[in-house]
Amino acid sequence: MARILRDVAAMQDASRALRKQGQRIAVVPTMGALHEGHLSLIRLAVSVADSVITTIFVNPTQFAPGEDLIRYPRPFDRDVALASDAGAAYIFAPSVEAMYPSGFTTSVSVEGLTSVLEGASRPTHFRGVTTVVTKLFQCTLPDVAVFGQKDGQQVAVIKHLVKDLNIPVEIVVGPIIREPDGLAMSSRNVFLTPQERAQAPVLHRALVLGEGMMHAGERASEEIINRMKALIGAESQGAIDYVSVADAESLEEQKMLGSGRRVMVSLAVRFGTTRLIDNIVTDVP
Amino acid sequence: MARILRDVAAMQDASRALRKQGQRIAVVPTMGALHEGHLSLIRLAVSVADSVITTIFVNPTQFAPGEDLIRYPRPFDRDVALASDAGAAYIFAPSVEAMYPSGFTTSVSVEGLTSVLEGASRPTHFRGVTTVVTKLFQCTLPDVAVFGQKDGQQVAVIKHLVKDLNIPVEIVVGPIIREPDGLAMSSRNVFLTPQERAQAPVLHRALVLGEGMMHAGERASEEIINRMKALIGAESQGAIDYVSVADAESLEEQKMLGSGRRVMVSLAVRFGTTRLIDNIVTDVP
Repeated sequence: MARILRDVAAMQDASRALRKQGQRIAVVPTMGALHEGHLSLIRLAVSVADSVITTIFVNPTQFAPGEDLIRYPRPFDRDVALASDAGAAYIFAPSVEAMYPSGFTTSVSVEGLTSVLEGASRPTHFRGVTTVVTKLFQCTLPDVAVFGQKDGQQVAVIKHLVKDLNIPVEIVVGPIIREPDGLAMSSRNVFLTPQERAQAPVLHRALVLGEGMMHAGERASEEIINRMKALIGAESQGAIDYVSVADAESLEEQKMLGSGRRVMVSLAVRFGTTRLIDNIVTDVP
Repeated sequence: MARILRDVAAMQDASRALRKQGQRIAVVPTMGALHEGHLSLIRLAVSVADSVITTIFVNPTQFAPGEDLIRYPRPFDRDVALASDAGAAYIFAPSVEAMYPSGFTTSVSVEGLTSVLEGASRPTHFRGVTTVVTKLFQCTLPDVAVFGQKDGQQVAVIKHLVKDLNIPVEIVVGPIIREPDGLAMSSRNVFLTPQERAQAPVLHRALVLGEGMMHAGERASEEIINRMKALIGAESQGAIDYVSVADAESLEEQKMLGSGRRVMVSLAVRFGTTRLIDNIVTDVP
């Protein structure tokens, strides 16, 4: 069973002790409600490090008022068991008060690629993410951090953050894990009604359609995006927030697709009160 | 002679190698133009650590347009000799391009205590300081960092930053080093004309006056501040930017001085094109 630590100084001491023993340390930051996607990241971390720390912290500062902070699932004991089984040696699960004590006033911001896509709909989201990730790195002092491609923009933002602040942590990215029908695994899928759940795989079908058009020679993103939107509209009641074809690193929208460019095709769609995101990264042939 | 490192990765590797040997590492961040004040901080660092890194980096992001970035003195070879003599084993002196490469968009901000005193006159200054200090800590990976009380607000801001971001670095503060006539040592003193230099010690005399009033029983900050301003006006042509009596940690202005409170009496005064700051920290009796 993983050792559960709730205190920042205790976590830092544990990490320093591991490093003194010559161990390579990986961290897998999560908000808990672990599913097979998270567990695949923990197993990936085990494969690249000697000791794996999973953080479980539902970070309030990356939720805006009216978002789903309160109903976000928190099955802590189950999470500990699952993370332990997947190979985590430590669970760092601080309280909100430990992370944001009275008088807390510091923030870490990445400009530019945080204002598009998710950042356009959720303007304070990434400042919450970059601040808490910086803090979690200082708490766990890892050599490697493993993030999921599911949050594709978050991956690009965190790579940029780590480079800009010279944080000596290697970022490793694990692939999206999907249900058999293609729906990307997400802690938020539990909020879907049976009807919404039945429609939700259209997100992945739309991404596959877009990728297919690209590989069939289509170079105009507008054509790709329109066909993807039409598919989602025809096969679901989902309300499209955005469909994007952007450079995978800078997240700049690409009107014409240049050969050899790595792009992220991504989308966000609301089903009732639940907002789902998904993406595919591919090289333009 | 200290080893000079200009590359971030080389600095991180050197620091990690020292830690592997069990050494305790101290960093003394400076903008160069070293004087006895800096050297006292390096000697203090030597007394609390096994290896001392001095950083020399004139950080452009903490200067506003029109401030003295361009004329700021950069006597690099002399700095290396002085830092080495004082006991620095490493000099980390990155280029501006190494610290802020094309595409750099990240910032670290501390709200609240950065908007008063120096922050009121220099609204972007502390964001530049907190960002570069976060970066320098990630580059040098120290156990301890030594700062000078001369920049009293900076000390309070950096203590707050380190606490908020959980940066595992102990902050040690060295006292202000003064010329025989009381003028606080500063790299900017070289800009003073002979006449301005003759008048500048009034800053320290004003601080001593304020401290003396407090210890004689005065509890109304307005009285203290007015007497200090009158002294500066009577004995110099300096243009007063501010005179402040504030809580030493939160930097909140104190109208009535509560017994036992630790306060920072601080001021900023312009002599011609040169802006000087100074402070005294004292416990209200």
